[in-house]
Amino acid sequence: MASSMNDLGVVKRNIVRADKAAVEKLSRFGVATIHEAMGRVGLMQPYMRPIYPSAQACGTAVTVLLQPGDNWMMHVAAEQLQPGDLVVAACTAENTDGFFGDLLATSFRARGAVGLVIDGGVRDVKDLTEMQFPVFSKAISAKGTVKATLGSVNIPVVCAGALVNPGDVVIADDDGVVVVPARLAQQVADAAEEREANEAEKRAKLADGVLGLDMYKMREPLAKAGLRYID
Amino acid sequence: MASSMNDLGVVKRNIVRADKAAVEKLSRFGVATIHEAMGRVGLMQPYMRPIYPSAQACGTAVTVLLQPGDNWMMHVAAEQLQPGDLVVAACTAENTDGFFGDLLATSFRARGAVGLVIDGGVRDVKDLTEMQFPVFSKAISAKGTVKATLGSVNIPVVCAGALVNPGDVVIADDDGVVVVPARLAQQVADAAEEREANEAEKRAKLADGVLGLDMYKMREPLAKAGLRYID
Amino acid sequence: MASSMNDLGVVKRNIVRADKAAVEKLSRFGVATIHEAMGRVGLMQPYMRPIYPSAQACGTAVTVLLQPGDNWMMHVAAEQLQPGDLVVAACTAENTDGFFGDLLATSFRARGAVGLVIDGGVRDVKDLTEMQFPVFSKAISAKGTVKATLGSVNIPVVCAGALVNPGDVVIADDDGVVVVPARLAQQVADAAEEREANEAEKRAKLADGVLGLDMYKMREPLAKAGLRYID
Amino acid sequence: MASSMNDLGVVKRNIVRADKAAVEKLSRFGVATIHEAMGRVGLMQPYMRPIYPSAQACGTAVTVLLQPGDNWMMHVAAEQLQPGDLVVAACTAENTDGFFGDLLATSFRARGAVGLVIDGGVRDVKDLTEMQFPVFSKAISAKGTVKATLGSVNIPVVCAGALVNPGDVVIADDDGVVVVPARLAQQVADAAEEREANEAEKRAKLADGVLGLDMYKMREPLAKAGLRYID
Amino acid sequence: MASSMNDLGVVKRNIVRADKAAVEKLSRFGVATIHEAMGRVGLMQPYMRPIYPSAQACGTAVTVLLQPGDNWMMHVAAEQLQPGDLVVAACTAENTDGFFGDLLATSFRARGAVGLVIDGGVRDVKDLTEMQFPVFSKAISAKGTVKATLGSVNIPVVCAGALVNPGDVVIADDDGVVVVPARLAQQVADAAEEREANEAEKRAKLADGVLGLDMYKMREPLAKAGLRYID
Amino acid sequence: MASSMNDLGVVKRNIVRADKAAVEKLSRFGVATIHEAMGRVGLMQPYMRPIYPSAQACGTAVTVLLQPGDNWMMHVAAEQLQPGDLVVAACTAENTDGFFGDLLATSFRARGAVGLVIDGGVRDVKDLTEMQFPVFSKAISAKGTVKATLGSVNIPVVCAGALVNPGDVVIADDDGVVVVPARLAQQVADAAEEREANEAEKRAKLADGVLGLDMYKMREPLAKAGLRYID
Repeated sequence: MASSMNDLGVVKRNIVRADKAAVEKLSRFGVATIHEAMGRVGLMQPYMRPIYPSAQACGTAVTVLLQPGDNWMMHVAAEQLQPGDLVVAACTAENTDGFFGDLLATSFRARGAVGLVIDGGVRDVKDLTEMQFPVFSKAISAKGTVKATLGSVNIPVVCAGALVNPGDVVIADDDGVVVVPARLAQQVADAAEEREANEAEKRAKLADGVLGLDMYKMREPLAKAGLRYID
Repeated sequence: MASSMNDLGVVKRNIVRADKAAVEKLSRFGVATIHEAMGRVGLMQPYMRPIYPSAQACGTAVTVLLQPGDNWMMHVAAEQLQPGDLVVAACTAENTDGFFGDLLATSFRARGAVGLVIDGGVRDVKDLTEMQFPVFSKAISAKGTVKATLGSVNIPVVCAGALVNPGDVVIADDDGVVVVPARLAQQVADAAEEREANEAEKRAKLADGVLGLDMYKMREPLAKAGLRYID
Repeated sequence: MASSMNDLGVVKRNIVRADKAAVEKLSRFGVATIHEAMGRVGLMQPYMRPIYPSAQACGTAVTVLLQPGDNWMMHVAAEQLQPGDLVVAACTAENTDGFFGDLLATSFRARGAVGLVIDGGVRDVKDLTEMQFPVFSKAISAKGTVKATLGSVNIPVVCAGALVNPGDVVIADDDGVVVVPARLAQQVADAAEEREANEAEKRAKLADGVLGLDMYKMREPLAKAGLRYID
Repeated sequence: MASSMNDLGVVKRNIVRADKAAVEKLSRFGVATIHEAMGRVGLMQPYMRPIYPSAQACGTAVTVLLQPGDNWMMHVAAEQLQPGDLVVAACTAENTDGFFGDLLATSFRARGAVGLVIDGGVRDVKDLTEMQFPVFSKAISAKGTVKATLGSVNIPVVCAGALVNPGDVVIADDDGVVVVPARLAQQVADAAEEREANEAEKRAKLADGVLGLDMYKMREPLAKAGLRYID
Repeated sequence: MASSMNDLGVVKRNIVRADKAAVEKLSRFGVATIHEAMGRVGLMQPYMRPIYPSAQACGTAVTVLLQPGDNWMMHVAAEQLQPGDLVVAACTAENTDGFFGDLLATSFRARGAVGLVIDGGVRDVKDLTEMQFPVFSKAISAKGTVKATLGSVNIPVVCAGALVNPGDVVIADDDGVVVVPARLAQQVADAAEEREANEAEKRAKLADGVLGLDMYKMREPLAKAGLRYID
Repeated sequence: MASSMNDLGVVKRNIVRADKAAVEKLSRFGVATIHEAMGRVGLMQPYMRPIYPSAQACGTAVTVLLQPGDNWMMHVAAEQLQPGDLVVAACTAENTDGFFGDLLATSFRARGAVGLVIDGGVRDVKDLTEMQFPVFSKAISAKGTVKATLGSVNIPVVCAGALVNPGDVVIADDDGVVVVPARLAQQVADAAEEREANEAEKRAKLADGVLGLDMYKMREPLAKAGLRYID
């Protein structure tokens, strides 16, 4: 019975990845734009930061659930990777150990992975930067991990406050990390495109000195809300 | 299209609540026991604390997704409450405002709610303590909130790192908050019962001075792992 | 010239304290109520917590600016205390040292002080609890401090994110700490009274099962904002 | 009456900005030097960090008080900007949402603003870096904000622990953010100049191997304080 | 060679405990007093808090070095306990898991232990409170741990920022946790006694309204330091 | 008597530094490699970060114990420096003040120091970056410090959770800071060399697509631990 209740110790091999064309289209937009296009949901917490400036990645999620101080499942995950995948690693408890370094990055890249998002720590930052292997993490720590306790691969995980299902599209850049459910990938990509088109026009107006107050027609609602100007 | 991508602005009225008998049985056990019986998954992060010592609650989740600084959806949630429900409130961003106080507690209790778990702040702690209305929160703050922006009610939410679906059983006490999926409620309750039975026997032995080293037969695996005793 | 730019090393002796009757009236209300009555400004950050449950205090601020690890100015402040004063201590840098303990509490009380609000640490918590001397602080720490560097007494200070002028009314309870400018004390006390009267009536309705949705007439604005009910 | 107690919902149009020549002179010095020249007051908390390395800014403060998750007032502030202004944004509660991005930066720059200091989050970091628009913030977050609730513009605000009045000079660089009251701008600029002159000489001596112990004549006071040398 | 470099996987059986009489005498004083008597060293960081109000403990340290998410060594430590010992548990990485609960407390107490100080999490808080088994920890968490990786017992550890050698006296109360090296136990106990005697007299004077300014003869040094009184 | 209990107010002049050749050899390896070679002990907490990207340093520790807000002992330490030393500064309490800037860096470098590791704040980051003087710190803050209270130089200190004895080797880079006891320097350097040799081979295999699962022979132990593959 334990097994039916238990999400630990499981590797799901066949997962449904988001449509490749949609993933490619999403990769053209920034996290802030996609988050808006999604209706402002799906964002990881802002403590997730790139380990080097201007790192960015977009791929289909292979998820990993780690135990604190233990990176055994990262090796199990490597085998499940396909080109275009991005590894999303959560941990059963808060932990900042260095679960990932240049050896695993070499392996992940050889399998086609495009990056890592991890709610924990990583190390070998210098090497990862030279490799330009994009990693978004909660912490950087030289502390190594053991390989002793089972977690899982390709189960739904909560990573930095966001639910990630295997196959979802995960986009990460300087602004943070956002998750797009696989079934919405195309829709969100289209909405992001539309949004970006609008922004170019707005940017030009604002650069000319037009005020957002006028461009967005805010003066009336502000007055209605009771805004008072004094001298 | 926005609506199909968007989890905001939705209230789901008919949710499937966990079996009442299973909920009642789960209410007899502590969070630590249930978490073990679950296979060590489903726990919220440890920053979730009771607002008064020895607060405890067990109920079926009515979920709320709040916007920062805005508690409009709490009022919407009140109408969806049935006796035995426990409100689980997440927020779209980190925020410690006081989303909840004695008026809402009065309303929730009148509708049959047994408690609140909120990844945000609450206020009127003195009144809530006198009412013995159990609340588990990230923060306490006198700061009030506005009622201006839509969130949702009874959608799946991530609260303090745990996924909660409407109708799941949520158990909270001094040790933290754990979520039991509705479909597993009976199984987990049975496993918790069995676990607790075992513990009584172990406790007696340990109280008599028997060592865990012997009771759990750890000496051999420790030696195998390389443990060395020195003088 | 240094002195004219410099707020350090100054003790202001004559300060204008808020009206006694207004202070007394404010002492009848909780922090959450007063914060609302103020228009939701003046609250200290929520990390300020009472050192024992249900501590509460209301008094006129004598302000102290401390240096990290140094409580010299607390002794200087003692001389400036009048009955009904509450000491508000800020620090020039983040520091959790124990700037205050039972000896200073004895001295402050002998001078008529009704409590302490400190953006730093305190110690002798057991003694302070037995004395029922209310303290609201950022931290508890046994670490003592030196008496080597000047700060100031009765200058405007920023304490836990709130501006406090000497003589302002400071109210603290389980929900936090709020600052009422001296000149507004009577107005805010009146507004708090009015607010509390309204709350009793609302509480009764909610206890009878009336929904906030109806009591506050929220259904129409929610619909206008686009709230959708689904089954 | 509410309005007289209430700092929310107000825009002050005419503010007295610090003297332009003094601001220009202050812009030549680093934050650490100015903070010393001020007598070690006026510094924001050290969690305020530049969003790109070596960002720096010096300007006259236009202040904004935001509500959590709401950037409406940023648009109101844009209209009040004059060349040389620097926007200082505080929030009524702790919040890390992305209140500001490349569109607002374009608008602020078009109005003459030289930068932003915000006790909250920002987004579009890549664009802001390319624009070289200096921003100092508590957080980076892709999460967008709504435009629903009033705050204020050009009232005194507490930002990251420092009091800022409209028109004050705010200087920000890699070391942090410091506030110079408008009326002291010239004095502080002169003191900073004097201080920097002294430092060049000291630096040369120290580079030659002279010890601070001798240069600052510390040996006697150290001995008096009881310092013991042992072998 | 690894073993000579390696502090992991070791249990030291014979440790030199501080003198019993000195430990008994130290148990009469609070942490703040002992910390002062020590010369203000040896204090753990202030995030270490009792799990129930007014918990206190004083004993000789049996030290444990844990791995994150793994409490195997706690069972190994149990065998090394003698009456009067207090377990001090450090972890090789930041971790808040619940390493300790009522079963281990039962075992520790059966072996004579007087309490636990742990730079990690504990659970079964309700049971531990009923047992009045004093625990001082960084966190409370229902999350259980595995038994898979070796740490050590009775090696020197850094716990919450303080160095603890096996056999040292550790004193813990509401104000924090302090470590007294075994060889200094008697000296520090005597110094604490002397200090406390002085405090009674001071307290009486301050209660009579004598100012610290006069009692400690601070007026002259304050004037020398440049303190200015203004009206 | 106080002095015998007291680690404050002491400067130890003659310390035994680790062997120069071993230090040189250690300088060739990264912190992660050395930490592994040590057997995974001796690492400082991960909040210690370089003040500029790719800073690195390796030297023999001259230790400093600071008081909060006071950098007097840094000047005392300067005199004790020898070429190849690295200053390790701890503080008696949590404090983020800027204890160190370009003047002290100039002095330290003139005395031969190769860097600074400080559990506190530093300032003049721009200058330190231009000087390429490597600093690893908890914080950056423009706030200056006083010179009023004694600490110590060359006593054992706990810095960011790690015990450092004077003369130990301290290595710092992008991944963190690790401490190697002086007597183990050669052994650890040799072990690091061996480890790095092994890594090159592993890296090549992984780059060719060999899985860690096979290279480390993990499949059997994973199966034994109960890992299940599902489709």
